[in-house]
Amino acid sequence: MTLKINLNADIAEGFGAYDIGNDAALMTIIKSANVACGFHAGDANTMQRLVMLAKQEGVSIGVHPGFNDLWGFGRRNIDMDPRDLEHMVAYQIGALQAMARYAGLPVTHLKPHGALNNMAAVREDYALAIGRAIQVVAPELVYVALAGSQMEAAALKLGLKLAREGFADRQYEEDGNLTPRKIKGSVYKDGDTALAQCLSMVRQGTVVSRQGTTVKVAVETICVHGDEPTAVAVAGHVRKGLEAAGIAVVTLPEMMA
Amino acid sequence: MTLKINLNADIAEGFGAYDIGNDAALMTIIKSANVACGFHAGDANTMQRLVMLAKQEGVSIGVHPGFNDLWGFGRRNIDMDPRDLEHMVAYQIGALQAMARYAGLPVTHLKPHGALNNMAAVREDYALAIGRAIQVVAPELVYVALAGSQMEAAALKLGLKLAREGFADRQYEEDGNLTPRKIKGSVYKDGDTALAQCLSMVRQGTVVSRQGTTVKVAVETICVHGDEPTAVAVAGHVRKGLEAAGIAVVTLPEMMA
Amino acid sequence: MTLKINLNADIAEGFGAYDIGNDAALMTIIKSANVACGFHAGDANTMQRLVMLAKQEGVSIGVHPGFNDLWGFGRRNIDMDPRDLEHMVAYQIGALQAMARYAGLPVTHLKPHGALNNMAAVREDYALAIGRAIQVVAPELVYVALAGSQMEAAALKLGLKLAREGFADRQYEEDGNLTPRKIKGSVYKDGDTALAQCLSMVRQGTVVSRQGTTVKVAVETICVHGDEPTAVAVAGHVRKGLEAAGIAVVTLPEMMA
Amino acid sequence: MTLKINLNADIAEGFGAYDIGNDAALMTIIKSANVACGFHAGDANTMQRLVMLAKQEGVSIGVHPGFNDLWGFGRRNIDMDPRDLEHMVAYQIGALQAMARYAGLPVTHLKPHGALNNMAAVREDYALAIGRAIQVVAPELVYVALAGSQMEAAALKLGLKLAREGFADRQYEEDGNLTPRKIKGSVYKDGDTALAQCLSMVRQGTVVSRQGTTVKVAVETICVHGDEPTAVAVAGHVRKGLEAAGIAVVTLPEMMA
Repeated sequence: MTLKINLNADIAEGFGAYDIGNDAALMTIIKSANVACGFHAGDANTMQRLVMLAKQEGVSIGVHPGFNDLWGFGRRNIDMDPRDLEHMVAYQIGALQAMARYAGLPVTHLKPHGALNNMAAVREDYALAIGRAIQVVAPELVYVALAGSQMEAAALKLGLKLAREGFADRQYEEDGNLTPRKIKGSVYKDGDTALAQCLSMVRQGTVVSRQGTTVKVAVETICVHGDEPTAVAVAGHVRKGLEAAGIAVVTLPEMMA
Repeated sequence: MTLKINLNADIAEGFGAYDIGNDAALMTIIKSANVACGFHAGDANTMQRLVMLAKQEGVSIGVHPGFNDLWGFGRRNIDMDPRDLEHMVAYQIGALQAMARYAGLPVTHLKPHGALNNMAAVREDYALAIGRAIQVVAPELVYVALAGSQMEAAALKLGLKLAREGFADRQYEEDGNLTPRKIKGSVYKDGDTALAQCLSMVRQGTVVSRQGTTVKVAVETICVHGDEPTAVAVAGHVRKGLEAAGIAVVTLPEMMA
Repeated sequence: MTLKINLNADIAEGFGAYDIGNDAALMTIIKSANVACGFHAGDANTMQRLVMLAKQEGVSIGVHPGFNDLWGFGRRNIDMDPRDLEHMVAYQIGALQAMARYAGLPVTHLKPHGALNNMAAVREDYALAIGRAIQVVAPELVYVALAGSQMEAAALKLGLKLAREGFADRQYEEDGNLTPRKIKGSVYKDGDTALAQCLSMVRQGTVVSRQGTTVKVAVETICVHGDEPTAVAVAGHVRKGLEAAGIAVVTLPEMMA
Repeated sequence: MTLKINLNADIAEGFGAYDIGNDAALMTIIKSANVACGFHAGDANTMQRLVMLAKQEGVSIGVHPGFNDLWGFGRRNIDMDPRDLEHMVAYQIGALQAMARYAGLPVTHLKPHGALNNMAAVREDYALAIGRAIQVVAPELVYVALAGSQMEAAALKLGLKLAREGFADRQYEEDGNLTPRKIKGSVYKDGDTALAQCLSMVRQGTVVSRQGTTVKVAVETICVHGDEPTAVAVAGHVRKGLEAAGIAVVTLPEMMA
């Protein structure tokens, strides 16, 4: 049986006159795009352009909800009532579902952005609020959740489809958490290091931690980044290396099938 | 055969800590609610509360898209590229469809807000852009259009469901346009005057203009307002008077059936 | 020597088409207004109207900066880089200084809003960031700080003018903190209870806590509220009662003189 | 006597995580920067960074107010009540004055952005509203106005300091207006063509129009752009060429002295 894996990235985080990242380049590397929905970034135009591009490139699309925080790009922790959060996420799901009609594409998954992702990884109330928004608005969506997080637990508790997520270009600690960015070497600039970690995640369901121990990281999707030129190069190297190793790189629906 | 008519009003135009209008009172009078979607007013919480209330009161719900203009409450004309406008409306349709899932209600119609409604009444490009957003995202929606406007023409051109709209508490000019608000007497504060105009619209498809002439105003829905206490009283009087005259006051889907 | 005290309230928290609170009524009771500056609430029009009203009523005006969070009305804790916070507060100071030119009034003080006030009361980095914004943009401003808070410490550390703040209609705990709102009786609905607490703060610099102990609360300004009709009535009762007791109710500059 | 001229450009139009244009490169070429103030673009952080850079580079700074329209980057015409517009501009003046305190720089001028600039060029009510905001908040500011526009007339009528503006890289029509961008050749990509036009404006107070006629364009400041790499190269060529021709390139205060 052929091994397979999904690659995902955050996309469409431009806004009005602004552009950010390397959407066009990344879209040829990944198979699932997390689309910003106008709260932390993105607007109706960027969403429409992205879904058309996704159709062309054979990429599945997902909601990338964030806090209502343009000045902070969704990277500031905001302490909300979980019901408010649930509604805010529900709203963003609907917005992308509408824009996806332009390409005739289904919305396939949801992955929270930035600070919302970080908070929901450790706060049960946030993880469940996001899950309930999925359950009410679009129960067919796959909840993309950091492996081992409160989001994984919430998806299981609510009976939602779950894709556990690992990272191609980030080092892990021995407790399974990501090594903080401020620690030197925590972000891989080298394609081979990232590829080796991905191969290990796909084949053995493990990574080697900063401390040298073997840590369980079993995932259905691997996140790559596009923030800098090196990130895109690393992502492209990972994609090619996975395929050269005989691993199929597939969309999230194909991964979950 | 029983005569019938729909009554609609703009609803849920509060926002965050703000409340506006008399939603609860109006919702017992009207049969279709135009729900603000977070651009000119409203937020995910007000939308969710409104759809729950709509379910309870047996009111059908529609999208009430507006310009992205909170400081101006959507009452400022904004000159946009029609494609940008189309996407902005599409986004708002999706947002309400998501929130409507909380009540299990279908979204049944769309009526533009404020300055967008005024501009689309006379600009073909705007009227068509709104129509295309409906066509792409939710072709089942009824396009609520000022009788005789460019929106009516756009709905017909695009093959969309159309409900022509008249006004209970606003005087008409002999050319079929509304009398400008700055002209004295243009807004009816008296329930009987409003009711008489509604009865005439429903029975004869006409109104008597400010100039005293008979003008054709054939409509499927009549707009009432909730901005001031007198407006709610006038609306309530219209509702009771229509029913006392043997006219069924129905939701928009029932009206279009 | 005549005893004196300042009364302050949050004002101008409407926005665009929205109005909130009872600005006109409150402005006849208080002597210093904390003006919302367009981030958690307020806009350029509400600010301009308020400063004109302040001039007419002899009320001194202050900046009431809040988080950039209209949907949450500035009541959600947001975790920002203190430098970003400092700039955000500096920006709001400038905005009010500009609008104050319409009335020819000086801006006299600054009091943070909602969640920002709560966080700065306990977080040194936030309290100092706000203080530095004052220091850079308008060192003449009085920093209005909850008595005993990190803001008080920051004002002293930075050498800023300081007015310690107490509350007319909120009960205190024996440790000097406010009794949480969820505890019954923590918000005084009764004018006499509020007045008694104010008289005690002004005359003895103490209050009687929920636990019955005497707690030191020495203040230069007392906050009253306008959120509900009872709050305005309580505030009015406090104002009259203070004056009947021979205590001068003065603006913040007069208080600091 | 040495001929002199000011060069200005729009600056700091990034926002949150977004960056736009080539601020750092442009700031070494121009002598006056028009700083976006958080409405069409920019935020408190970008403003603070820009004023520090302006101090370092010896560039004078001005307010660059725009419509409250992030999704449209201030390029959409918005039809506002002139009083609302005046307050909106006043607010932005104050915001920049506050941020300028970080560098200890005075704010020296005001130039409207995008659609606001276009509308105020031809609408007397808008031109006067902007002028009144200057008059109330900061009467010392120079009103930078398209030569021959309603803004020039408004500045003269209100007795404000006026700097008439020309364009380095845009062709003129025989009536003195700019050639519309859709006409081929209307934007100069060639440095020598731009420089020749600038030299003509400075020395003769005229340009050669697209129709080949000589048109009067007497200006105190010339706008250069930074939107594309070629624009920065053109701007740099203009700066060098002016100085090589013995023309002093000075700040706006030096120009007005």
